[in-house]
Amino acid sequence: MQDAITPEDRSAKGPAEGHDGPVTLINKFVVPPGRDERFVELWTAASHYFRRQHGYLSLRLHKAVSPDAQYRFVNVARWNSLEDFQAAHATEEFRATVTADGWEEFPSTPALYEVIVADDAEPAHASS
Amino acid sequence: MQDAITPEDRSAKGPAEGHDGPVTLINKFVVPPGRDERFVELWTAASHYFRRQHGYLSLRLHKAVSPDAQYRFVNVARWNSLEDFQAAHATEEFRATVTADGWEEFPSTPALYEVIVADDAEPAHASS
Repeated sequence: MQDAITPEDRSAKGPAEGHDGPVTLINKFVVPPGRDERFVELWTAASHYFRRQHGYLSLRLHKAVSPDAQYRFVNVARWNSLEDFQAAHATEEFRATVTADGWEEFPSTPALYEVIVADDAEPAHASS
Repeated sequence: MQDAITPEDRSAKGPAEGHDGPVTLINKFVVPPGRDERFVELWTAASHYFRRQHGYLSLRLHKAVSPDAQYRFVNVARWNSLEDFQAAHATEEFRATVTADGWEEFPSTPALYEVIVADDAEPAHASS
């Protein structure tokens, strides 16, 4: 089973022409009911790797409250550049992290975005 | 065609038992290549409605840079409570906004989340 999801499947693709400015990863996870604790455990371990990497800016892990959400967990993570994001996904430690036992249970759909409209009325470090 | 997507389809469902604390809408849009300008025009008009509503906190509209992204636009919007979010989606003005001519071209998949892990290293109002 573990070979079914490769490290490449866990990496959002960048545009061939490159990209200027920050990028935002939006990574959607399919997590079966009752498996939240195991998923969060694995995700947290992986997040510790990413938080240490050059160019990492922020992350927010979202858990669905809508009962019909197809993706019950969504990570939104900001990186300083496409190059930094790609470098963090090209290491042996990344490959070891995302092929750790258990990840095969949680398919993900990662994609990279740029923010084109931002309206942040709330204060920094608002409680969440 | 316009009847194919109802205002209910444009509204993320909340849990029957309610929810304490802020909620985050993650709304994914299918936008055909070449139709970005029209989509952003319609979305911007709708966003002006939401920004005026009680309990609205913030929004970020993301545009894909990954060439294979299924959803080329994703809105991430924070609200102070489930009740505020639902009230904003229960008005006649909401119904008129999301049934405006042109929206039928852009199917959306809205769902509500709570933030369970937040690490915001970047300063408030960072350039984006």
